[in-house]
Amino acid sequence: MMLLSAAAPTQRGTMADVDPFIGTGGEGHTYPGAVAPFGMVQLSPDTDTRCVIRECYRHAAGYRYDDPTIEGFSHTHFSGAGHSDLGDLLVMPVAGDVVPMEAGTPEAPGYRSAFRHATEVARPGYYAVTLDRPGVRAELTAGTRIGVHRYRFPARKAAHLVLDLRSSLYNYPGKTLWSGLRLRPDGILTGFRETRGWAPGRKFFFAMRFSAPLTGHALDNRETDVAYKGFQGPGRGSDAVAERLGRALVARLDFGPLDRPLEVKVAISGVDEAGAVANLASEPGDFEAVHARTQAAWGQALGAVELTGKPAMRRMVSTALYHSLLAPSVWSDSDGRYRGPDDQIHRADGFTFRSTFSLWDTFRAQHPLLTLVQPEAVNAEIVRSLVASRAASPDGILPVWQFHGRETWTMIGYHAVPVIADAYLKGIRGFDADAALDSMVASASYAPYGGLGEYMTRGYVPIDREPEAASKTVEYAYDDWTIARMAAAMGRRDVAAAFDKRAGNWRNSFDADTGFLRARKADGSWRVPFDPTAINYGSDYTEGNAWQYSWFVPHDQAALFRAMGGDAAVVAKLDRMFDYDNSKLDYSHAEDIAGLIGQYIHGNEPSHHVAYLYSYAGQPWRTQERLKQIVDSQYRAIPEGLSGNDDLGQMSAWLVFTALGFYPVTPGTNEYVIGRPFLDRATLTLPRGKRFTVIARGLGDANRYVGSVRLNGQPLQRGYIRHDELLAGGTLEFRMSRTPNRSWATAPAERPYSMTR
Amino acid sequence: MMLLSAAAPTQRGTMADVDPFIGTGGEGHTYPGAVAPFGMVQLSPDTDTRCVIRECYRHAAGYRYDDPTIEGFSHTHFSGAGHSDLGDLLVMPVAGDVVPMEAGTPEAPGYRSAFRHATEVARPGYYAVTLDRPGVRAELTAGTRIGVHRYRFPARKAAHLVLDLRSSLYNYPGKTLWSGLRLRPDGILTGFRETRGWAPGRKFFFAMRFSAPLTGHALDNRETDVAYKGFQGPGRGSDAVAERLGRALVARLDFGPLDRPLEVKVAISGVDEAGAVANLASEPGDFEAVHARTQAAWGQALGAVELTGKPAMRRMVSTALYHSLLAPSVWSDSDGRYRGPDDQIHRADGFTFRSTFSLWDTFRAQHPLLTLVQPEAVNAEIVRSLVASRAASPDGILPVWQFHGRETWTMIGYHAVPVIADAYLKGIRGFDADAALDSMVASASYAPYGGLGEYMTRGYVPIDREPEAASKTVEYAYDDWTIARMAAAMGRRDVAAAFDKRAGNWRNSFDADTGFLRARKADGSWRVPFDPTAINYGSDYTEGNAWQYSWFVPHDQAALFRAMGGDAAVVAKLDRMFDYDNSKLDYSHAEDIAGLIGQYIHGNEPSHHVAYLYSYAGQPWRTQERLKQIVDSQYRAIPEGLSGNDDLGQMSAWLVFTALGFYPVTPGTNEYVIGRPFLDRATLTLPRGKRFTVIARGLGDANRYVGSVRLNGQPLQRGYIRHDELLAGGTLEFRMSRTPNRSWATAPAERPYSMTR
Repeated sequence: MMLLSAAAPTQRGTMADVDPFIGTGGEGHTYPGAVAPFGMVQLSPDTDTRCVIRECYRHAAGYRYDDPTIEGFSHTHFSGAGHSDLGDLLVMPVAGDVVPMEAGTPEAPGYRSAFRHATEVARPGYYAVTLDRPGVRAELTAGTRIGVHRYRFPARKAAHLVLDLRSSLYNYPGKTLWSGLRLRPDGILTGFRETRGWAPGRKFFFAMRFSAPLTGHALDNRETDVAYKGFQGPGRGSDAVAERLGRALVARLDFGPLDRPLEVKVAISGVDEAGAVANLASEPGDFEAVHARTQAAWGQALGAVELTGKPAMRRMVSTALYHSLLAPSVWSDSDGRYRGPDDQIHRADGFTFRSTFSLWDTFRAQHPLLTLVQPEAVNAEIVRSLVASRAASPDGILPVWQFHGRETWTMIGYHAVPVIADAYLKGIRGFDADAALDSMVASASYAPYGGLGEYMTRGYVPIDREPEAASKTVEYAYDDWTIARMAAAMGRRDVAAAFDKRAGNWRNSFDADTGFLRARKADGSWRVPFDPTAINYGSDYTEGNAWQYSWFVPHDQAALFRAMGGDAAVVAKLDRMFDYDNSKLDYSHAEDIAGLIGQYIHGNEPSHHVAYLYSYAGQPWRTQERLKQIVDSQYRAIPEGLSGNDDLGQMSAWLVFTALGFYPVTPGTNEYVIGRPFLDRATLTLPRGKRFTVIARGLGDANRYVGSVRLNGQPLQRGYIRHDELLAGGTLEFRMSRTPNRSWATAPAERPYSMTR
Repeated sequence: MMLLSAAAPTQRGTMADVDPFIGTGGEGHTYPGAVAPFGMVQLSPDTDTRCVIRECYRHAAGYRYDDPTIEGFSHTHFSGAGHSDLGDLLVMPVAGDVVPMEAGTPEAPGYRSAFRHATEVARPGYYAVTLDRPGVRAELTAGTRIGVHRYRFPARKAAHLVLDLRSSLYNYPGKTLWSGLRLRPDGILTGFRETRGWAPGRKFFFAMRFSAPLTGHALDNRETDVAYKGFQGPGRGSDAVAERLGRALVARLDFGPLDRPLEVKVAISGVDEAGAVANLASEPGDFEAVHARTQAAWGQALGAVELTGKPAMRRMVSTALYHSLLAPSVWSDSDGRYRGPDDQIHRADGFTFRSTFSLWDTFRAQHPLLTLVQPEAVNAEIVRSLVASRAASPDGILPVWQFHGRETWTMIGYHAVPVIADAYLKGIRGFDADAALDSMVASASYAPYGGLGEYMTRGYVPIDREPEAASKTVEYAYDDWTIARMAAAMGRRDVAAAFDKRAGNWRNSFDADTGFLRARKADGSWRVPFDPTAINYGSDYTEGNAWQYSWFVPHDQAALFRAMGGDAAVVAKLDRMFDYDNSKLDYSHAEDIAGLIGQYIHGNEPSHHVAYLYSYAGQPWRTQERLKQIVDSQYRAIPEGLSGNDDLGQMSAWLVFTALGFYPVTPGTNEYVIGRPFLDRATLTLPRGKRFTVIARGLGDANRYVGSVRLNGQPLQRGYIRHDELLAGGTLEFRMSRTPNRSWATAPAERPYSMTR
């Protein structure tokens, strides 16, 4: 790994700068394995799937950089999730005559193997490692719906694969509901697993083809604790059956000694095994062919941003862009069929259905980034997937936290709403806007969801009726405002008026006496005792406290600031937040709380826009200071380089935007608040083909401030740029300065959007 | 119930004589509920689903006549199976303000209710009972893929339904793998259950529509013993969600006070919920309309046999015919899709896929009966279903014991083979005979199945390699003979020669010294100790002993008889079997052993042809005596009227044939061995439209013997009739006699087919 260096700014190509190991240590929860852009398959090593105490959380992505062994390679992973699941279909090569069927522990390994980082290679779409125990060189690549393994076995030793359908991430007892393996006459091995993990009753199907014929096999069900296993197939005592069903399946596949590498091509499906077989056929070619296609796809996707900067920063930003291009991932089969929120099979006509929506995280910056670096059709496809999900939702609402087509009911808000509104307001079409607006209104009107009935009646969520009431109230109010914006743009005045009104509901949960957002009871009183530093799950706030949540009025910061006592009071309060002495606080019980700067918590999303708020108070140079403080302390070009869960690209998207010099504080405004750049030069190739270049003159540790800004050669006095300005192409030129410019973008008219400014 | 009466022979209509309660007491394992001919839905009351010790077995069909309470009405049941499963989707009406969500016990009832037999009505396609506790009159009817409930609630009391997805027959702990309930905006309730019962990982889907709107509902998951239940939907604390998933689901549906009966129309599917919804639409109309259609269908199906006889005998035989027309039942959805043996979705093009194949039982007489009383297209459809099952079988072989499309690997042999051969040899076409023969050969050549590898090598199954070896050897040999017969008829001489040779393999397991079929070890020696009365599971024989199994060479009884020492020795041995003093034997450990006459066990299939064997030894009058002995002792027109499991109609088909005066001892010969009639007159309407009448002159208790037989007015000297003679229509006239005719059909040339006669 390369540390932050003092070398001169250079350019090497965004793809070459991607380091998939960033985030695999510490709290990042990323994985180093092979994946195509938005690929359905994430084929990656799992270093430990034993799930005791906090090991579940620590291994949310399967791989941890500090682990000494690899259990095997599984086909599905989240990039940076806080909670987890997946790790489907673990495959491990074994060489020789003894084939362990249990993973074992690092101290007493079964099929598990030690490995050394020196043998590892990780690039977009490619991963390789040497497994010490079997002496196997393992390479992985992935296409859209397939993963390909290539294993070079030691000469003259019998080659085997172990397939372990018991293995899983967040592997609670009883998680596997049912599973099956079938060896077909054509040599394809198919199978399925149904799990009750994060998503209830999730169904995973697969099909695998081998480059060498099987010389033997054993399919085994290792269940020990059931009253009745049923009849066990035609050869009752034998493992060499063609089919095995059960809840603890493991398979041994024998290939004999091989004189060339064994390639294993695996397709997955959420529909059925036939879907997996068809997906397998839909992406032809061997390891090299698949690898070449995926490399080209990454070149195209990452090429949307060209960077010049110091090597470490380039690596951090390039990797952040890579991590921003993984979700929402493809979920429909090659024939368009997919399993939806109702567990039924649907067909996506004319688009690719995508899932893995971590919307509470990604509405903030990751989706806005996609509107800049991905084709409009992809963004339209995301909206279509959300609206199609709502149509198939048993509750009739948009996704909350959905993966593999299924709803998990994780986190709060209806943040599919700002994603859709932001896309629409940015001119993205190709979806049914009326149906989309209907879905948004339905999601904002579904009384059984998260205290929404009470919210609609009272204008706030009462804490004695619903947990995390303060956070819900302000997030609903913002989501409501985005509905109003989109409705207004569509000429739907009735909807706009109704939701404009709801957009002010944050006021009902803001306590002017303490200056904090607080949880209110149904009788109107504030809940006591009140401690703005307390973080408890199920309490007044969601993964946070009053310090972080009191800033969440992205659509009307001006009104919030007035309620807080004006600009000076706000700046002082922001400073108190960042400079808070947290040495006496213990948040170790809260898994997601990481990356603390005082009471600012960069490792979790509610803080993400806060450093930009100085600009709303007329002191953009303070934003500039804080951004440097955050980037310097929260991101590094090493495995431990992410201070918190990457959350499907949100932590990364924050860095991409911030490094470019602007950030979408309020999706729905079409504005980006100018911060300060961290790259010497960056060129975006935008969806409609224009190029927009950001230049930072005089960038360096000593020049912490923005001295002046020019847009297309003309001085830019305001503290934000607009989406249409980016789309039009052009140049944004910063001149960095050792001293703050205390007059730039400070006047109220030069500040970013606020609803009631 | 009407007991055997001394009334004069009369005719009332076969349908009117059906009494679905016959077999619901004792060991019959039939159910009294509503079902259409071969219907996919068997909607019937379950009196107890608590599964402790032998209660599982005793409640294999859900209902026992001697039980005092009804738990509810579920939608799937086997008719007469020995092992069991099903009992899917239990529905129970509850009236009033308190709605118990547990069934309770007869002593401490929850939603369970007492009932009185006086209030019960059971007819083909209709069942009714009054439930004392809620005071509800319950009526059930069924179509092909639907069941309809009609509940008349007490006036002014709130009407509720309880749906219990935990309830099941043979309900082992852990049986429910996963289940779900979804209340759709259109008012249809859909759901599914996946179970590991007799069939592994069986999937059951349903859709229900109510004639009155829901006024409230609660969907509850009552699991208590899981590490992680996952998130529980949008209204986390509420039961009034639109969807609930889990392993212990129960629902309460509220309708308020109703001024007319509540109708509940339920469709089932093995494919998916959309399939169930489409099935619901495919059979339109209300309770009365569905009932009328099903009544007409039963009238048509039962009308194939018209009976004149004493009332009790008419009731027994009519009911036996009814019980013979339930399986193999429809399994494909209305759009042709079905879930096959590989758990994948297939489409039946141009036919209806059928499942529930209890082939070890039904190849004997139930399938041969269907070739006489059902259209040729139905019999062709059965063959197509078998061949399609083989195409989708992970092991590439024909069904063994299949239901709901899934293989259970229960019992022995490959008895789909004689079913197909018998159909083909009887001239039934409309299926791909080459594919069928390929399937038969594949099933007879699949080494991993039941010692078949050893059998092919050695000519017998060695007991030290495979349990129940003696039974397997002789059943394989017979099945092989049917392959040879069909291959010969198709002109496939190579196949015919190979399997003709295998047809003699029974000799390799016959011990001439003891005169019994015995299990042999791989070294050629007989396994000792040898006790021809021993019945142990996993021993030398399958659900039987040497006494019953030594007679199973249906294709070459003449050769067997020579090996046994000739006709006189055979008759003496048969007499020893029937007259065996079994008073010191205890077979209570063997569930399926019931209906003993010495060592003859009418309650289980291996004995079913044995009474007819006297005729093969030249003493048909002894067959006549034994048949009267069996019919008098083993069948009665009361709930306890079946002496053993009806086994999907095999026990019943035995009675239909025997009452007509002939029996298909050897499917594949196109011969029916003449026994003696038990009806005064019976007319078959045959598949090609001709009518064949059997007349018994002088029938009465005193006239136990056949004096003479005339076919179409001409004396018939041989002891069998041929299938073509039946198809051609005509009259078979018996003159019954007080004394045996010791010259009729005694000469070797007049005896039924033997391969080496």
